This record gives sequence, structure tokens and C-alpha cells, in this order.
Amino acid sequence: MRSLNGFIQRVRECNTGLEELHTLTPFVVDGKEVGKLKPRFVEQTRRFPEVFVVEGTPGPSGRVSLDADLDSCDKRSAKIADVLDVLRKESFITGWRDELYPVVASFDDTPLLLVERAAATHLGIKAYGVHVNGFVREPHTGAIKLWVARRSMTKPNWPGKLDHIVAGGQPHGLSCRENVLKECAEEAGIPAELAATARPVGAVSYLTIAANGYKPDVLFCYDLELPPDFVPMPQDGEVSEFSLKSIEEVAEIVATTTEFKTNCCLVIIDFLVRHGYITPEQKGYLQLVAALRSGECS
Amino acid sequence: MRSLNGFIQRVRECNTGLEELHTLTPFVVDGKEVGKLKPRFVEQTRRFPEVFVVEGTPGPSGRVSLDADLDSCDKRSAKIADVLDVLRKESFITGWRDELYPVVASFDDTPLLLVERAAATHLGIKAYGVHVNGFVREPHTGAIKLWVARRSMTKPNWPGKLDHIVAGGQPHGLSCRENVLKECAEEAGIPAELAATARPVGAVSYLTIAANGYKPDVLFCYDLELPPDFVPMPQDGEVSEFSLKSIEEVAEIVATTTEFKTNCCLVIIDFLVRHGYITPEQKGYLQLVAALRSGECS
Repeated sequence: MRSLNGFIQRVRECNTGLEELHTLTPFVVDGKEVGKLKPRFVEQTRRFPEVFVVEGTPGPSGRVSLDADLDSCDKRSAKIADVLDVLRKESFITGWRDELYPVVASFDDTPLLLVERAAATHLGIKAYGVHVNGFVREPHTGAIKLWVARRSMTKPNWPGKLDHIVAGGQPHGLSCRENVLKECAEEAGIPAELAATARPVGAVSYLTIAANGYKPDVLFCYDLELPPDFVPMPQDGEVSEFSLKSIEEVAEIVATTTEFKTNCCLVIIDFLVRHGYITPEQKGYLQLVAALRSGECS
Repeated sequence: MRSLNGFIQRVRECNTGLEELHTLTPFVVDGKEVGKLKPRFVEQTRRFPEVFVVEGTPGPSGRVSLDADLDSCDKRSAKIADVLDVLRKESFITGWRDELYPVVASFDDTPLLLVERAAATHLGIKAYGVHVNGFVREPHTGAIKLWVARRSMTKPNWPGKLDHIVAGGQPHGLSCRENVLKECAEEAGIPAELAATARPVGAVSYLTIAANGYKPDVLFCYDLELPPDFVPMPQDGEVSEFSLKSIEEVAEIVATTTEFKTNCCLVIIDFLVRHGYITPEQKGYLQLVAALRSGECS
């Protein structure tokens, strides 16, 4: 029986940097903590006193909030956009996406403001994504194969890494289901009627303190069973190639290499658990199941 | 879209009494905390100074451990069995099962001692179970129906409540898989070759402080797809009848009634999440997913 240590190691790689937690300052909007800021970002906020209010000593006991006049989502979003634009021009914030993320204390809440996706980690806000495991069941044996994407070498993040057939950040203004349909079309040429059969199967979460900030990420997981004769096609240049691998081969890659984009490993391990490829007889099963939701899940 | 409040309420009912947590005393064996004791059980342990060592004030800062001479699993098990037998004769412990549970700090550990199942909650040790959702897929529509058991009115626990097709505590000396096969045969007359197709799909956990003690329970979840023409048969008198209900009807019963044995609701909700009957568009989705593993998961 294979040890689960490799899988546990992949989960750990999604949950790193937490020894810096005591250096982070709560980011509070409308009385709710919606993010956490690294000391270097707190310093930046001091440059914009008409937008940000810094109280107390930076760290868990202090807080950064917004000027009281910013009492609506629109006002907050506009003012923060101006600040982020300055920081972008100074190259403090890189990887601009032109995609708005909602800032919320909890996924179901009405957004308190909208911010450019590239600023999410700097602000330490919750970021959500949809990740789709696209799989094929061998008609005769029932054996499962998984479609795996290789990310384009020109992608700014994780170039050349292995990825799900479809995955994407969860932007403002789309439901998860709508986002799955959109990403299925854009990333893999999956027609809407087929994409609509994608089944939500739960969520995984992790917590990383990265160089540019705090990442309390939640990924909504989907299973999409594809017909054996369907072949995904790269549409938007984000994927260099798709390949169909046996679930055993995918498990081996996840367990023994860092070829996959790190957070995809969580979603694949969740798939392996749900489909019975990882069993309670394997040492560390319960720890692995629990570790798949190490981050916030709200 | 149905609100998830009913499901969230069922999960809450599995996680109650935690306001008493500050009254519990750690139960320590071989230097490891393996359980928690209510004040009334600590008082009982004082009657057996040749077995138990009570240190400090009862509560989280105190501890109850075993006499240092009890330095093997066999010695500990024998001495504790004597104590439990006294407490059974005095009717302090009821519901004797003649089934041994391993006492461990974590599921994969070698047992530090074995105790009668009826004493598990009194000692506050981790108890594990296997719960099987037996389902049928309509050949033409793919619609899912779930086999539901009604517990016999003569069962000491939860008489007359709805239950899984198969479920059972995880005793010493069997793997989870072996236990599933055994319970499938005993409780529902499911032949071994069919039971062997039960798929482990994860685990749920909860934490209750009940009248008789602390319950940090973990349930290993299984999906067992059954042929449409298979009919389970009560074997051992524990089940009064089996019925096949649409997944929508089962969801409605769980959401709006307390007809199911409480902890079965967790495993059914997990099934509803994994099979896409509960979706991220429903308010409270992430809280529900997280709440399914509110207890310890180790």
C-alpha cells in the first residue's frame, strides 16, 4: 500500500509561511475583517490617508480600515482602484488581470468593495476559484483517466506546470456554475451542454503567506465526466497541450513530483479520496482528509 | 433554491454540549491524551487507586492517567476491564456490547489498551465507525435513490429512527474494509462480492458532550452502488425494514425532520455535497462543507 506522505507533502506546500501570521495586520471594512496585510503593505497604506486609516501598532492588535466617508461599495471600489493604480505604476503590484474580485468576510455576503484581482494577495482577502477535474471512464473496465493540461510557458504564473482541464478564479458577477461554463468554453473548448454536466462536489481550502501577502484561498471542486471521444482544445493560449492520463499515473505524479501547480494537487487529492483511490487502510488517511481544508472555509 | 438551514441544524445537533468542555479532565495513557473525562467519571476513577492516578484539580489542567505498572496493552486492558465490570454491575455503565474498541491518540496508532465499547463515551476516547450509503442509479435517467433502513423498535439506541443501509462501529482487529464487508452481510444480507465494491469516499467528524461523556467521533463514509434489482434483507433483527427513497425525498427528510439517527445526517449531507445535490449557489455552502468535519479528524 503506497504511503500517503507524498500527498501530505503537497498539501503542506499549499500551507506555508504561517510563522509570519503574527506580523499581519487585520484589514477591516465596515466593521468586518476581510483581509490581512503584510507590514510592507501597511506602509504603503500610510501614503494614502484620504483612503486608509491605520490604527495601533501594525500586527494582529492593530488594524487598517477605510475612511468613514467611503460608505458604499462603489465609493470604496473607486478610491481603492486609484490607490492600486499608483502601486501598479510603481510596479509594487504586478500581474494585472483587469478582473474584479469581491471583498467579503464570507462567500455569500454582499461585496463590501471590488478590487483588481492582482491586489487580492496584497490585501489578504479571500480568493475563490473553481477547479474542474475532467475525467473519462473506460467503457468496459470503468477505469478512470484524467485530462491534464500543461500551462503555457508564456503564462506569468506557474508557466509549464501541469493543471486541471479547466480552472479559474471566481470573479465578481458570476455564479460558480456560470464561471465553470465560461472557463470550460474559454480554456478547453468544452461546449456548454457538456460543461453543464459538471457536478459540484465540495471545496478545499488552504492558507499561505507568500512574498506578496496573505492567501486564504478556497477552491470549489467539480467533477466533469467527459465522453471517451471528446478531446479538449486549447482556446486562449493559456494551455500548451492537453493529455489524458490514467488516474494512477496522475496520483504518482502528484505523490512524487511538484509538476502540478501546487493548489491543483489539493483538488486532485480530494478527487482521489472521493473516488476511493486513497483508502482508510493507508496510514495518514484522516490527517490527509482534514488537511484538504486547512484554510478558512467560509 | 432550498435554504441549507435545515442541514446546518442537523450538523449542529451532532455538535452539542461543548459549553461543558472546560469541565473535562484529560485521560492520559503512556504520555498521550487519548480521552476526556466528565467530573462524575473522575470521581469513579478515585475508587480504583491501583489502576488510575488522578493528578491536580479535575478540569483541563488536571489529568487522569494509569498506574505506571500498567506498561503494556494487555495489562492495561485487563485492569480497566475489571473496573468497567464493577461500574457495569452498579449500572453506572449501561448498554454493554461485548465489543472491544482500541484506545488510540490517532487512528493509525497501535492501541494503548482495549476497552468495552459501552465505556467509550465515559472515557471520552475516539470512536470510529463505517457508514455506507447504499444507492441505486435509475438505468435510464441516472436519478439516484438511496436505501434507507428503519431501526428496530427494540434497539437500545435510537429505536425506530431512520439509518443507513449499513453502518457500524469500528472494532479492534478489523480494517475498515473488512468491517464494511462484515456489516454488509450482517445487517443487510449484501453478498461479499457486491459489498466489496463499496467505495471509501472520505470521512466526517463531530464532537458531542453527552450526558454520559465526551464523544469525539469520526465516521468513514462509503458509497455502495447497488444493482436496481438488489433488495437488502434484515438479517440480525437490528433493522425493521428497508425502503428505497429518491435522493430528493431523503434530502427533504434530513432537512426538515429529525427522523434520521443524528450522525447519519452528516454522512447523508456529505453524499448530497459530493453528488452535486447541494451546490455553491446555495447560501451557507462553504460553512456546511466545513461543518461536516467539526470534530477531530485523526
